[in-house]
Amino acid sequence: MTRPPSPSLLADLAALLGPKGFTTDPEVLAPWLTDWRGKYHGAAAAMLSPATTEEVAAAVRLCGEAGAAIVPQGGNSGMVGGATPDATGTQLLLSTRRLDRIRAIDAAARLAVVEAGVVLENFHNAVLAHGLRFPLSLGGKGSATIGGLVSTNAGGTQVLRHGTMRALVAGIEAVLPDGSIFDGLAPLKKDNRGYDLRHLLCGAEGTLGIVTAACLRLVPVAAARATAWIGLESPDQALVLLRRLDAALGDALEGFEIVPHTCLDAVLRHIPQTRAPLAAPCPWYALIELAGDDAEALDAALLAELAPALDEGLVRDVAIAKNERESEDFWRLRDSISEAERAEGPALQHDISVPVDRMPTFIADNPARLSAAFPGARALSFGHLGDGNVHHHVQPPAGCDGKAWIAEHGEAVSRLVYRHVVELGGSISAEHGIGQAKRAMLAEIDSPARLAALRGVKAGLDPLGILNPGKLV
Amino acid sequence: MTRPPSPSLLADLAALLGPKGFTTDPEVLAPWLTDWRGKYHGAAAAMLSPATTEEVAAAVRLCGEAGAAIVPQGGNSGMVGGATPDATGTQLLLSTRRLDRIRAIDAAARLAVVEAGVVLENFHNAVLAHGLRFPLSLGGKGSATIGGLVSTNAGGTQVLRHGTMRALVAGIEAVLPDGSIFDGLAPLKKDNRGYDLRHLLCGAEGTLGIVTAACLRLVPVAAARATAWIGLESPDQALVLLRRLDAALGDALEGFEIVPHTCLDAVLRHIPQTRAPLAAPCPWYALIELAGDDAEALDAALLAELAPALDEGLVRDVAIAKNERESEDFWRLRDSISEAERAEGPALQHDISVPVDRMPTFIADNPARLSAAFPGARALSFGHLGDGNVHHHVQPPAGCDGKAWIAEHGEAVSRLVYRHVVELGGSISAEHGIGQAKRAMLAEIDSPARLAALRGVKAGLDPLGILNPGKLV
Repeated sequence: MTRPPSPSLLADLAALLGPKGFTTDPEVLAPWLTDWRGKYHGAAAAMLSPATTEEVAAAVRLCGEAGAAIVPQGGNSGMVGGATPDATGTQLLLSTRRLDRIRAIDAAARLAVVEAGVVLENFHNAVLAHGLRFPLSLGGKGSATIGGLVSTNAGGTQVLRHGTMRALVAGIEAVLPDGSIFDGLAPLKKDNRGYDLRHLLCGAEGTLGIVTAACLRLVPVAAARATAWIGLESPDQALVLLRRLDAALGDALEGFEIVPHTCLDAVLRHIPQTRAPLAAPCPWYALIELAGDDAEALDAALLAELAPALDEGLVRDVAIAKNERESEDFWRLRDSISEAERAEGPALQHDISVPVDRMPTFIADNPARLSAAFPGARALSFGHLGDGNVHHHVQPPAGCDGKAWIAEHGEAVSRLVYRHVVELGGSISAEHGIGQAKRAMLAEIDSPARLAALRGVKAGLDPLGILNPGKLV
Repeated sequence: MTRPPSPSLLADLAALLGPKGFTTDPEVLAPWLTDWRGKYHGAAAAMLSPATTEEVAAAVRLCGEAGAAIVPQGGNSGMVGGATPDATGTQLLLSTRRLDRIRAIDAAARLAVVEAGVVLENFHNAVLAHGLRFPLSLGGKGSATIGGLVSTNAGGTQVLRHGTMRALVAGIEAVLPDGSIFDGLAPLKKDNRGYDLRHLLCGAEGTLGIVTAACLRLVPVAAARATAWIGLESPDQALVLLRRLDAALGDALEGFEIVPHTCLDAVLRHIPQTRAPLAAPCPWYALIELAGDDAEALDAALLAELAPALDEGLVRDVAIAKNERESEDFWRLRDSISEAERAEGPALQHDISVPVDRMPTFIADNPARLSAAFPGARALSFGHLGDGNVHHHVQPPAGCDGKAWIAEHGEAVSRLVYRHVVELGGSISAEHGIGQAKRAMLAEIDSPARLAALRGVKAGLDPLGILNPGKLV
């Protein structure tokens, strides 16, 4: 159990970190005590903003000696309340935002060493100046920080080709719960000196250590892309097409998203200046993107695969973007689904994954399960088929008070969805993590063997439980 | 502390596992109590050979209740004594060799579920029948098992393109120290439910759990390859060439090995029917391999990069294999180095890695450091430049009794080499693991922060210390 920070601990931290690095001012603290969606609210005894790894280490050491709880926070753009302190006002918020240096960009080795507080978009721009790109992007790129992205093993739109954050992390520097500095920044391709602490810290949501910097892999800027909007009968056919493109095009395939007609319809109704890419509606659509050096070669490769698929009846119709603007238009349809759904009314959202092969089964079976238990409820799934990860939205029955329905049935609906996911060997959190949002559900639904192991790791590395208590495990 | 197994524990295990699964017969046990190189010798109270994951779990539970130590063993082909029990005769050897089923091969998804005891070569052949390959191979493929390869995060000759075992593992099933079964076989591309137990178990050398099965990624069989033997001035030039090929050829580049002239010379002297690929000797050579579908296109791509490199003087001379036989001949030169070195006399071998960029520095600086401390000692480095991993051999001074010199100076020589590696941010075990061979050195040389974290993980997951005690941490 942690203890509230004593006045003497607060004084020591203030002396250590200086006026820029320590505050108890409620006005300065306020924006960081609520998550960006306004779902989680907390309080903090103080906000620590160390400017160097050594300051982080010294602060953690002081807190450890005093048994005080620390909640690490990056851009405060998480989805599960993982960076919001509890309501007791006894926890210390540790912001990494002053750790904001890009320490090195090595264009030849295609590696960069970046501190935790660097904002993703700034990092994108910095490497672009070297003719490189960091192939991970997401909606919150203007506020999400590298430390948070590593600690939550962030995903985004390029996972199919480049993997999640985990695959892009070549090295990690972190302050461990005992205040020691783990220097694992060296980008070793082979290293068999025991347990992989880098992979352990990636996705640990700040419960095992505070990531202070990462060595990240970069890729060349892709000069060209080919984008297609495809009409299909079902997710089953989409999976067959995905396998075929994957085998034929290999690493050129950067995106494979699926969209049900209901979602496209909502976009066309609610989002101005959008139009359907195909003449006639289809039950499902796939949005496919290839990236490479030569636009004509990409178009040709795409056509070589899609033409026979059309002849065979595997796909119903195909539109290949004729230029960059059409590519953008296709992606805008996909990226506007959430906004269009919001315009339709409240919905319960789930961030889930199952093995890619089982995704069509989940999408086909879940609506029936749902409406059997909750008559009138409608399930929508769209998103990253290639990653086995969809956004799964449940809309309340038509005509009812949506917010009230969600308040009454939300937990039971989510439990039904998550149980289905677990049955199929899937994950109740594909991208967003556990944080405080899904902690109770994880404890209820995950296998006892796995839960015991997670708790064992936590207890072994943070025996005092000072790092981000109340999150994850 | 573990306890010697009581007669009643042994009786319970015998009853659980049956005559095929339990033996104390010294003749049956003997071959498994010494590692294949004959460097480590142990004893065991019994050998357990469970045939199912459930039997492994039940056996571990019984041992846990009795506090008895278990040493997991696969093909017994490790390099660091990680699967050899200690000499007390109180440990139980647990062989995974009867877990020998390939549970599933899914050619469309390019995934296979394989039990721990399946021998690598058998697995290669099984997936080849489906037109696929498992892109990890090494010298011991005729005896090494999947469980051991996962538990040691094995490397091999295709790491540059396909990564180590870690990158090929899509899922793991393991029995944890409390006897519970962790079912992490489902191949999820996105899963943010907390600490990644798969990555934790991969490379843990059986100290955190007994891997019973893995879901492994497969790749299409490569129809063609292009191989070149290149003469160079130095590892610095090799690194420049590697970066250039990597940028231009991307994933086609499957191998980039470097060989000093001394090594080629030894091969030509000791290995029958070998000949130098180039007319005149060069200080260094690079052996480069591309893989793909179209042999002519690969040759053309290689030539397009090598011709200007030759013109600029970046490389001295180039031989491109004209056919499959010449490719084999080039690789035979590389693969015979160890045999040729053995014919030259005893040498002290180190399996080390540093960041790829620092490899030329290590290769350039290490011989001088060595001969300053140990006059006459000669250092040779050869191998996987693209992985930042070389085999580093130290030969005793000419004319002395090599074995005696190694017995007297070996430990101090290795310490010097390892300290140099650590200075450069490298690893004292790139491929082979820690086992019992490097445990003391790791404890001496690794950072206290990292060591404490490794020990914390071990204590948290295996509080009784029953799994492979005396290994790794």
